[in-house]
Amino acid sequence: MKNLKGACIYGQSGGPTAVINASACGVFQEALKQELITKVYGASHGIKGILEENLYDINQEDPAQIELLKNTPAASMGSVRYKLNDYAFDDTDYYRLLGVFKKYDIRYFFYNGGNDSMDTCNKVSKFLQDVGYACNVIGVPKTIDNDLANTDHCPGYSSAAKYVATTITEVYQDMDVYDTGTVCIIEIMGRNAGWLTAASALAHVNGEHGPDLIYLPEVPFDMEKFVKDVRRAAANNKDKVLVCVSEGLHDKDGAYVSDYFATGGKQDSFGHAQLGGLADVLERVVKQEIGFKVRAIELSLMQRCASHIASGRDIEEAYNVGKTAVQAACKGLTDKMVVMERAKKSEYEIEYKLADVALGANTEKTLPIEWINKEQNGITKEFIDYALPLIQGDPKVLYVNGLPVHAKLKKIFVKK
Amino acid sequence: MKNLKGACIYGQSGGPTAVINASACGVFQEALKQELITKVYGASHGIKGILEENLYDINQEDPAQIELLKNTPAASMGSVRYKLNDYAFDDTDYYRLLGVFKKYDIRYFFYNGGNDSMDTCNKVSKFLQDVGYACNVIGVPKTIDNDLANTDHCPGYSSAAKYVATTITEVYQDMDVYDTGTVCIIEIMGRNAGWLTAASALAHVNGEHGPDLIYLPEVPFDMEKFVKDVRRAAANNKDKVLVCVSEGLHDKDGAYVSDYFATGGKQDSFGHAQLGGLADVLERVVKQEIGFKVRAIELSLMQRCASHIASGRDIEEAYNVGKTAVQAACKGLTDKMVVMERAKKSEYEIEYKLADVALGANTEKTLPIEWINKEQNGITKEFIDYALPLIQGDPKVLYVNGLPVHAKLKKIFVKK
Repeated sequence: MKNLKGACIYGQSGGPTAVINASACGVFQEALKQELITKVYGASHGIKGILEENLYDINQEDPAQIELLKNTPAASMGSVRYKLNDYAFDDTDYYRLLGVFKKYDIRYFFYNGGNDSMDTCNKVSKFLQDVGYACNVIGVPKTIDNDLANTDHCPGYSSAAKYVATTITEVYQDMDVYDTGTVCIIEIMGRNAGWLTAASALAHVNGEHGPDLIYLPEVPFDMEKFVKDVRRAAANNKDKVLVCVSEGLHDKDGAYVSDYFATGGKQDSFGHAQLGGLADVLERVVKQEIGFKVRAIELSLMQRCASHIASGRDIEEAYNVGKTAVQAACKGLTDKMVVMERAKKSEYEIEYKLADVALGANTEKTLPIEWINKEQNGITKEFIDYALPLIQGDPKVLYVNGLPVHAKLKKIFVKK
Repeated sequence: MKNLKGACIYGQSGGPTAVINASACGVFQEALKQELITKVYGASHGIKGILEENLYDINQEDPAQIELLKNTPAASMGSVRYKLNDYAFDDTDYYRLLGVFKKYDIRYFFYNGGNDSMDTCNKVSKFLQDVGYACNVIGVPKTIDNDLANTDHCPGYSSAAKYVATTITEVYQDMDVYDTGTVCIIEIMGRNAGWLTAASALAHVNGEHGPDLIYLPEVPFDMEKFVKDVRRAAANNKDKVLVCVSEGLHDKDGAYVSDYFATGGKQDSFGHAQLGGLADVLERVVKQEIGFKVRAIELSLMQRCASHIASGRDIEEAYNVGKTAVQAACKGLTDKMVVMERAKKSEYEIEYKLADVALGANTEKTLPIEWINKEQNGITKEFIDYALPLIQGDPKVLYVNGLPVHAKLKKIFVKK
């Protein structure tokens, strides 16, 4: 469908990252430049904003504020977790969406998210083709989990990885100050994929102390072995042990380790099986079994929103992925997602390509088992070689009054 | 006691900060320069290292690594929490210390810490004077709590404040992405003084959204009023509420709010009154009473060790405080602590002065009540005027492989 002239719409979906707005910036700046694109809309809260006709007029935004999106974390358009039904089963949403697309003459649709969002792209694209409405649909990937298939890595991951590695080097310095036994357990995001927790190992690259033990959801967790591992690590490093764990750790039967005490039926008065998460559970076990001072730290939202320590390379790549999506759509491509391919060179180099969006939909790429060490409590050099290039580069943050400045968009709603 | 020639010893004590090592750098670089100082020792784990004769030979350290201390968080010499007895009551430690001082000809003693450490300086200094051993003792202040009296502010506070304010701006972006009610409760260090929690309000200075509600330990906390405050704040800001709380919040009877559920006698199987801290307690209350999605975040060790986002001004001041201590001691002063006085000018300027160390010992400076708003859930402009200058300046971090580089000292023990 070449030379389509019309408006474009861009939406964000799923969990935020430090650089999803850098992709928004790439989409907006490129779309505002393209002659085929007559108007640029942002969907408020993703697909929901389209269905409810809550659209922002991006043409009215100040270009300087759009530029600042490169250093603004989270999702400036608002995000959503909304899964479209299969349209053979229920086509209500699809026809509603078609109505909005027709009303605003939307001929380009860019959707920025993880595998669920690629699924949305795929469904929307197939439906529009079936009803004969010409519209080029391109998926723009993002996720801190790095679990999207068909791409070397995913925008958002690299910045989260840099935050994790940086924080680990600093926290180790802090936990090392007293001459008493100290175990620090750091809980990192990742339900099924250990990519982000593995990034804690990058803390070692400058010869500094990093995590002594790393547990990933790709392999079953064994509490007895864990206690033994901690004892051994303590003996090897003057009773200081830094442990990094993925939130999604589970045992060989698939039971979440964070539910470890809940299985004993212990619930609080509100019916929670327990307060706190995985790190708190492991804290209790280590305190009981080893008796060291233990500190449980959850990196919480900071690991995905700390744009002040984002990877400069990630910002650039996220931007390019957004820009590439627009260029591809204007060349007539549809039903694709932008992927990154690492050039087989000694120097790190990324080529931006297009893959069928169906390939990214609902698939989950976990860490290769061969990148986990034999003891299943650490990672191999192959992972470091893969991840180290990703965290490079200054994020070039603008500071005013000693604080990083974020974009302030006008977010003017289009009249319905 | 002028023109004392002899060795000096430097020790660190109490909780670490992002810039205590910048003070160490100031002490070391200046002491290595001074002709009166024949040798520079570092005490391993503060006063305990002196008592046990565990001393590092600082003269053998690489100057480039000493310089890197400016950007190295925590306590490079190792810290300790050890309170000397009153020597009228038990002088064992004092005579042990005197023995070590005589053996190594220690004529200068610099101790870097909070009010407990100033107490140690004071006791040691008084004892040495009483027994007629010539040694100049100067306290070097540090604390993220900012609760040390007689100084405009304390090195360490400004960097922690900058971390808190930066993180709040980023976390708000993240919690704002969904169109559903969201309350985020951020727990910040400070048992009795609310200085660091108050710093969350700096997040507003560039016109960004900061905390909606701030609760400080200087005023009693009332759970019913808190729930009302959250409801009102939610109504005012599309059901998004960001709450910052000091860990030491207590009610009008002095009971810690973190023990709120414990008073009902709910204990887990290990005898903990509860898992988690204050933020978890408030999370439960808000979930129960308001039903929004709630996220409890503890800024944990990161707030005191995130040297990558330290205040450049704090680094400079911490350095100068250390340097001033050495210069003062070499001029013959003793029994003093270095304090910072803010010049009464429109431009921010700090003068380094000496105060009697007894004044800093065991006193605790809390936030002025008049800087807390009438509703007791926020702070006034006076606090912003006070704190904003402190968080200025680039920390000038050296990055290698995409990660901040920290000092690697040899830490060679002196032969006993």
